[in-house]
Amino acid sequence: MSKDNFTVTPWDVSGDVNYNKLIKNFGLSKIDDKLLEKIKKQTGELHLFLKRGLFIAHRDLDVVLNSYAKGDSFFLYTGRGPSGNTHIGHLIPWILAKWLQDKYDLELYFQMTDDEKFLFKENLTLEEATGFAYENALDVIALGFDPKKTHIFTNTQYAKTLYPQALRVAKKLTFSTTKAVFGFTNETNTGQIFYTSMQTVPAFLPSVKAGRNIYCLIPHGIDQDPHFRVARDILPKLGYYKPASIQNIFFPGLAKGGKMSASDVNSAIFTTDSKKEVEKKINSAFTGGRETIEKQQKEGGNPDICNIYKYNHFLFEEDDERIEEMRHLCKKGQIRCKDCKKQLVQKINNFLQEHQKKRQLAKAKLSEFILTD
Amino acid sequence: MSKDNFTVTPWDVSGDVNYNKLIKNFGLSKIDDKLLEKIKKQTGELHLFLKRGLFIAHRDLDVVLNSYAKGDSFFLYTGRGPSGNTHIGHLIPWILAKWLQDKYDLELYFQMTDDEKFLFKENLTLEEATGFAYENALDVIALGFDPKKTHIFTNTQYAKTLYPQALRVAKKLTFSTTKAVFGFTNETNTGQIFYTSMQTVPAFLPSVKAGRNIYCLIPHGIDQDPHFRVARDILPKLGYYKPASIQNIFFPGLAKGGKMSASDVNSAIFTTDSKKEVEKKINSAFTGGRETIEKQQKEGGNPDICNIYKYNHFLFEEDDERIEEMRHLCKKGQIRCKDCKKQLVQKINNFLQEHQKKRQLAKAKLSEFILTD
Repeated sequence: MSKDNFTVTPWDVSGDVNYNKLIKNFGLSKIDDKLLEKIKKQTGELHLFLKRGLFIAHRDLDVVLNSYAKGDSFFLYTGRGPSGNTHIGHLIPWILAKWLQDKYDLELYFQMTDDEKFLFKENLTLEEATGFAYENALDVIALGFDPKKTHIFTNTQYAKTLYPQALRVAKKLTFSTTKAVFGFTNETNTGQIFYTSMQTVPAFLPSVKAGRNIYCLIPHGIDQDPHFRVARDILPKLGYYKPASIQNIFFPGLAKGGKMSASDVNSAIFTTDSKKEVEKKINSAFTGGRETIEKQQKEGGNPDICNIYKYNHFLFEEDDERIEEMRHLCKKGQIRCKDCKKQLVQKINNFLQEHQKKRQLAKAKLSEFILTD
Repeated sequence: MSKDNFTVTPWDVSGDVNYNKLIKNFGLSKIDDKLLEKIKKQTGELHLFLKRGLFIAHRDLDVVLNSYAKGDSFFLYTGRGPSGNTHIGHLIPWILAKWLQDKYDLELYFQMTDDEKFLFKENLTLEEATGFAYENALDVIALGFDPKKTHIFTNTQYAKTLYPQALRVAKKLTFSTTKAVFGFTNETNTGQIFYTSMQTVPAFLPSVKAGRNIYCLIPHGIDQDPHFRVARDILPKLGYYKPASIQNIFFPGLAKGGKMSASDVNSAIFTTDSKKEVEKKINSAFTGGRETIEKQQKEGGNPDICNIYKYNHFLFEEDDERIEEMRHLCKKGQIRCKDCKKQLVQKINNFLQEHQKKRQLAKAKLSEFILTD
């Protein structure tokens, strides 16, 4: 734990994350109204995640969009560390990527880092990680990406393409730098030390393939920034552009504070959860409600700390008037947590029912999306 | 340079190597008469390199041969760091591997480490290293290996198979260990730190493929021992046998002391050298001769420090009586360096003429030998 009482690395998020401090520590730029205006001007609308502040930071997003405005397009790159089933928090950067793909007509490279998860999870086998990669790919495809423009690959299955390019990165990256960026020690395993170079590759692989420089934009969770800080340091040395990024905060977990975490099944709604499981989890979720109905009616609830409200705010209630109304009713004590929960269960289950149907259909479409050597 | 006034690592050989000290420092076993007897009993004869002390050290060779005697066979693994053309020194472990393949009817896995050479040579591109791998493979094939039992692969071209297995090794190997074994520092690049895991893979890949443990014997230059020390430490943790090895000393260079080195063209006879080049190089080689013919006739020469004598002893004069005669004539001052050189030029050029012919024919046979993903 740092002096800030929170820790954010690609492999460890703990404490009460202060995003303003994190943005400062990482050296990120905030997504401000001016940038949002620029996006809106180009796309005609703003995605919910942008309006509601789920994506709060970026690197060089303005550079990429200015270049786009001048006729020079870019590609998207995002990914997943396949250590288990997909939960709703994982979907956040993917959903934004889908929206960006549609709005800007973009190619997407989607990396499944089975190597990473094997190297960083003591008890995970490589076979298990590779297996989860295929399971997780179904969730990606279920979101409706264009198969002609979307390329999903698993690091071990695409190693003949990725490994030689990763070597070019690794040759420029000393252990010293990885110590500073990731906090590695002499006891870190040598696979972990090498790994970040594999995560850097998709940021320039399309440029290698095209034989010309193409801008890269990476929608990702803010904890992954250290990897791309390394990438931004090294890619210009290899003659490529620095990748740009757009970064989301952690999706709230079901308990008080914290994030949805695949390693804690009770913290998260998984895409494969049944209706009963969703109902049970949401009913046990932390809210901003008072101890008693009487107190709630008298003093009102607190939507700002309420997970149920946050889920609506960030993902499940797109209607601006409706979300404002929910907030108002809560604060005035005019709605019970039980009712908010009931509505959210319905919304989540509607979403999951549709998602699970598409996920099932995705099995037959896998080959349209998967890149292998 | 260590306190021993010599340094031997896989990437740096310098000083006057004291092999007895090196064997002690590395913790190797000497190849003794008892072991040579065991080999002779199994093969019916001893290869020149064994009789003449070019291979002097081993690890667990006795274990592998005892197991063979009980009906449990083994496979061979050797390789090449493709940073340039092949010289005669490179051929040494390959020639022994060919003899072992024939005598014991063994599969051979031959690794071309283009990744290594790219990572450790500042100015070498990956494309150059991969290109040399194919050039060097022609020299391997020219030695007459059985295409049905010989599998040559280049790390970047076989990465889909090798990388996932290397991850299993790397997960068990800390930076601390690589510091101790290879002398790495914080400024070592992260590709170099990872690399040894790639060199470990062929020592157990046939066991992975077969789904059962198979003993591995690695004929290699003594400088490569640190890699296989790591392999021997880790493979049992993954459930595989420790690889055994049989290790040759460095093939003498053309100058006084030192070894044939690909990075110094004047130190080595390359397999692609012309007759004229060989003649020129051998004529300039360091010998054990005296300053003048008169002194030579009076005091005699010194075959023990003579490169011409060593080349005959180790490789070009198989006849035991003839080599003894050469030694005798030299020491008695009854033969001039000029004549020894003339004879050796003839022998080398005969060898190279035949080798270059086979090397040319090897181009059409490459596909029978090469493993790719």
